[in-house]
Amino acid sequence: MSFTTFFGFIAGVGLFVGSILLATPNLGLFLNAPSIILVLGGTLAATFVGQEVRYVMLALKGIATTFTPQLVNRNILNQEVGRIIRWGYLVKEKGFLPLEDEMKKVASDPFLVFGVELLITGYTGDEVRGTMESVADNTFERNMVQVNILRSMGGTAPAFGMIGTLIGLIVMLDAMGDNPEALGPGLAVALNTTLYGVLLARLVFVPAANKLQQRQEILRFRHDLVVEGFALLAENRSPRFIQDRMNSFLDPAIRFNIDQQMKER
Amino acid sequence: MSFTTFFGFIAGVGLFVGSILLATPNLGLFLNAPSIILVLGGTLAATFVGQEVRYVMLALKGIATTFTPQLVNRNILNQEVGRIIRWGYLVKEKGFLPLEDEMKKVASDPFLVFGVELLITGYTGDEVRGTMESVADNTFERNMVQVNILRSMGGTAPAFGMIGTLIGLIVMLDAMGDNPEALGPGLAVALNTTLYGVLLARLVFVPAANKLQQRQEILRFRHDLVVEGFALLAENRSPRFIQDRMNSFLDPAIRFNIDQQMKER
Amino acid sequence: MSFTTFFGFIAGVGLFVGSILLATPNLGLFLNAPSIILVLGGTLAATFVGQEVRYVMLALKGIATTFTPQLVNRNILNQEVGRIIRWGYLVKEKGFLPLEDEMKKVASDPFLVFGVELLITGYTGDEVRGTMESVADNTFERNMVQVNILRSMGGTAPAFGMIGTLIGLIVMLDAMGDNPEALGPGLAVALNTTLYGVLLARLVFVPAANKLQQRQEILRFRHDLVVEGFALLAENRSPRFIQDRMNSFLDPAIRFNIDQQMKER
Amino acid sequence: MSFTTFFGFIAGVGLFVGSILLATPNLGLFLNAPSIILVLGGTLAATFVGQEVRYVMLALKGIATTFTPQLVNRNILNQEVGRIIRWGYLVKEKGFLPLEDEMKKVASDPFLVFGVELLITGYTGDEVRGTMESVADNTFERNMVQVNILRSMGGTAPAFGMIGTLIGLIVMLDAMGDNPEALGPGLAVALNTTLYGVLLARLVFVPAANKLQQRQEILRFRHDLVVEGFALLAENRSPRFIQDRMNSFLDPAIRFNIDQQMKER
Amino acid sequence: MSFTTFFGFIAGVGLFVGSILLATPNLGLFLNAPSIILVLGGTLAATFVGQEVRYVMLALKGIATTFTPQLVNRNILNQEVGRIIRWGYLVKEKGFLPLEDEMKKVASDPFLVFGVELLITGYTGDEVRGTMESVADNTFERNMVQVNILRSMGGTAPAFGMIGTLIGLIVMLDAMGDNPEALGPGLAVALNTTLYGVLLARLVFVPAANKLQQRQEILRFRHDLVVEGFALLAENRSPRFIQDRMNSFLDPAIRFNIDQQMKER
Repeated sequence: MSFTTFFGFIAGVGLFVGSILLATPNLGLFLNAPSIILVLGGTLAATFVGQEVRYVMLALKGIATTFTPQLVNRNILNQEVGRIIRWGYLVKEKGFLPLEDEMKKVASDPFLVFGVELLITGYTGDEVRGTMESVADNTFERNMVQVNILRSMGGTAPAFGMIGTLIGLIVMLDAMGDNPEALGPGLAVALNTTLYGVLLARLVFVPAANKLQQRQEILRFRHDLVVEGFALLAENRSPRFIQDRMNSFLDPAIRFNIDQQMKER
Repeated sequence: MSFTTFFGFIAGVGLFVGSILLATPNLGLFLNAPSIILVLGGTLAATFVGQEVRYVMLALKGIATTFTPQLVNRNILNQEVGRIIRWGYLVKEKGFLPLEDEMKKVASDPFLVFGVELLITGYTGDEVRGTMESVADNTFERNMVQVNILRSMGGTAPAFGMIGTLIGLIVMLDAMGDNPEALGPGLAVALNTTLYGVLLARLVFVPAANKLQQRQEILRFRHDLVVEGFALLAENRSPRFIQDRMNSFLDPAIRFNIDQQMKER
Repeated sequence: MSFTTFFGFIAGVGLFVGSILLATPNLGLFLNAPSIILVLGGTLAATFVGQEVRYVMLALKGIATTFTPQLVNRNILNQEVGRIIRWGYLVKEKGFLPLEDEMKKVASDPFLVFGVELLITGYTGDEVRGTMESVADNTFERNMVQVNILRSMGGTAPAFGMIGTLIGLIVMLDAMGDNPEALGPGLAVALNTTLYGVLLARLVFVPAANKLQQRQEILRFRHDLVVEGFALLAENRSPRFIQDRMNSFLDPAIRFNIDQQMKER
Repeated sequence: MSFTTFFGFIAGVGLFVGSILLATPNLGLFLNAPSIILVLGGTLAATFVGQEVRYVMLALKGIATTFTPQLVNRNILNQEVGRIIRWGYLVKEKGFLPLEDEMKKVASDPFLVFGVELLITGYTGDEVRGTMESVADNTFERNMVQVNILRSMGGTAPAFGMIGTLIGLIVMLDAMGDNPEALGPGLAVALNTTLYGVLLARLVFVPAANKLQQRQEILRFRHDLVVEGFALLAENRSPRFIQDRMNSFLDPAIRFNIDQQMKER
Repeated sequence: MSFTTFFGFIAGVGLFVGSILLATPNLGLFLNAPSIILVLGGTLAATFVGQEVRYVMLALKGIATTFTPQLVNRNILNQEVGRIIRWGYLVKEKGFLPLEDEMKKVASDPFLVFGVELLITGYTGDEVRGTMESVADNTFERNMVQVNILRSMGGTAPAFGMIGTLIGLIVMLDAMGDNPEALGPGLAVALNTTLYGVLLARLVFVPAANKLQQRQEILRFRHDLVVEGFALLAENRSPRFIQDRMNSFLDPAIRFNIDQQMKER
């Protein structure tokens, strides 16, 4: 459970509700079912017209996953680097075969399994790099589709908010001659859709797109790191060089130093 | 027939009509022939001034094709990969000549036919890759012209909506001295063009541009995959390497495994 | 004479005039010389401050050329490809010297003349490619300057429209105390400049920029195609390979097939 | 203490307060706690939903660091170049070992320490360049995350300002029938949130993002310069070539000339 | 003195003043010292917070230089090309030493001096190209900082115009209950800051940024041309090849032809 996402969302909704309650006791003024249906429905309709249904579903599920904690973080990256350096020593001593046992330990991660299989098959460093980079690129492209759909929904929601307000305005203005007193409340209702559109975009779609993109970029970064490591393994580089190259991906504060770790043991 | 595109479009129009009917029984208030002509006509006029007529026609036809189902999907990609791997074994055993028979099976696809002809002619891997990449690039550029026209129409329609509203406002404000009571209904009519412009952009032009772009990107992806496969065939790489490289383009869930498939038979 | 550009422009102006006449018999309401001078003059002034005068003149002339028909189209590209393939056979048989006669046939096209001179001088494929690509790049950059000026004028015109409306509003609001009845007509006049700015941008500057950019991109495409062809000639590649590579630039529907053409004769 | 940042901030706030005092003695009109909480809270809430909490904290701390003076400036760059040239002579004469002593002098800078360690380990120029470029790239990417968060907050703050104004408008318009006289003051309060949103964005978030980005770009430039220098050291290039290549990074006015410096001594 | 920049600026200001005088005799209505101070001061304050003071000063000086004539134009480029071709013949005949005398003729241009020094030192073509490209890149990056600051000021000025209008509106609306008649004049004053902001952006900051960017791009183009020429000199290419490659940078109309020039003498 990603506490901060949840907290941020609750805080955002709370601020919105709280600031309304400070201004008026009449919360119902902001609850208007047809307005909600128009904005949310229009946004979804435009999205389903413009995007394959399978990707839209993934994007909507993606909103939910922003409440789950991030899988790849600093510690994971550090462990990843550590494992590759360890495998460097292993390969130097005993060749690629012992990696078959290691593969079982990471069986839940198809990217690592695929990489180890390439190493065991005995491809050259350039072949391993090319094939694994292709996996990393294509995975990133595939996952960014959801992010782009959410981002485009973040632009569509305020547009349908404005459409709703225009409809409300036209109805209201047309009736103005008969009953000028209704102008104020009519405009108030008409502005609700704009408010919904902006809120939806700013509290749901745009932040979800940002968070998913950030995660994809971290995953991409991790993939690039692993690709580089596996290519160096395939090139049979010294474990020391592998460690230096791997550390170049990390924040100096969390760099890996196998000499020091061995001393500390 | 692409059900979701159709459904999305109907849902969008339905929400629009429904939310109007909830607000006023007077649907005619939103039907204003001169407004429709101004917005749609102005958008088309500006587009015909700025773009070659042949491409505008293709773009308008493109809107219609968004209602047809997508040609290249997951299964197609999987079959494509399977065929290339199979051809890898074929070429390894019997050389490029049997591909001439295979070519007949894919005769409806000019890209594959062109590629097989290059293979049979006996070009090197780099020559095949360079020539086929050039086809893929140029096809993509050619097809993106329509997408860009639709996207620019999505920006032009609201601008002509605003032009219409300005015209309506000027006429209305000029007459205001004589008849202040007409202000409301006059403004209501003037706002119609803005509404049409935004609706046209958000329910027609932008989603059509998105969907066509998505399809072109998938086609491009498929072309890149085929180019890579054919270059590997021309380089006479092992079927195993071809399979690994081809799989690097696919979602792990739909990766191809010829060993497993043979076992399963 | 580019019929569609002309037709589009006339249609745009006609729709504008027609929709006004439907709303009011008073066309003069929309003709306001100081407003036109402010918007057009302000746009030109800002452009002359920000751009070299020579390029602005070229950009303004560029608007006029959008009414002339497009020089490079499908047939031209096909002929271009045909000529290069024919030259491939010629060079294979008799070397580069016969190209001197061919050069006279294309004397009106400095790009082809320059390329043939490079071939006759006897440079390598890479030298020919590098030098001709440099011509293609620099020609494109040079010509895009006009396009960018027109596009920036398309952003400047509405801004000066808004400036004019602000001036009108300030004058009108300041006088409001004395004569509240003049508010409507005053606002009507003030909105004229916004209308001019948006119309100028959407019917003149932006479409002209689009059309000129499209033509430069087609010219660029043609240059890239010729560069590739001449580099292959310099590399002494087989006419068959030249044909395959050249065809990779063309839509499958208009691909060139010298074998078929010979049979058809 | 970065005097200009502080001065600019104080001047901005002073102009704001001063121009208010010129217009009204009632400063309290612009202080409205619920409005401040809504805008600032909404911006932070949306940011915490969309970004990992660790990065948001770094971004907020980043605002504070814009008041500290810039670490890398012209003199630093000049010293850096001078040191690398000096090391060039040192390495030419005595090999890489004396660099171990030099490393102690720069012990506070992990980038230089990492580079010297690579040199002493004896990697080739390409290996040093690849590994150090990877550090420079990844450091830049890591630090730009804060910049991007601040920039996105600069877009979020006006949006929440608009949300606040919409809420105020709806409450005000709904109550308009009862008390039309309250329209003015109500609107005044509603506009406060828009004012806060724009001020926050324009005086805090956007300038802080600009300044942090500028610093990261200077740091990146310095890293690129050092990478180039260390790669040349590893390639054992002549100190003269190292000086020429290093000078190519500097403004002609501050170029380093070791011959002249030696003469001047 | 750049006549067109000056003329454009005067024309812009003249149109502005003239269109005001046509609408009202009361020019003072548009002169409002607090408004000018708020917009100009706010823009400068935000810029000093977000940018290093040294670069802001350079950017402000840059506005003044747009009134000076352009240094690098068509004739300069042609002379540049001519000189490099002439040096090509010189180097072919007598080696690099005579360039030392030539260097004195171009002593005022540090880029040429730096390049000639590299040639005389005897570096290879790739070394000369790499080092001089680095100078060209870094000079361009350094000079674009001012352009980017001016462009960002072009976005900041309207924002502070809007801030001023919001302040004016809030003060005016709050006082509306007491004196409804003051609404018009109050709004007129409030709109002044928006007018100043847009005028400043559109007549000063954006055009100055455009002109400086254009000049930097021409300078960059000239640098690229010189880099290519010097690299060819270092590679000891034939003067004929140097001429062909140099001409590839020029408009066909001003291409250099040393054979023809020799005949004409």
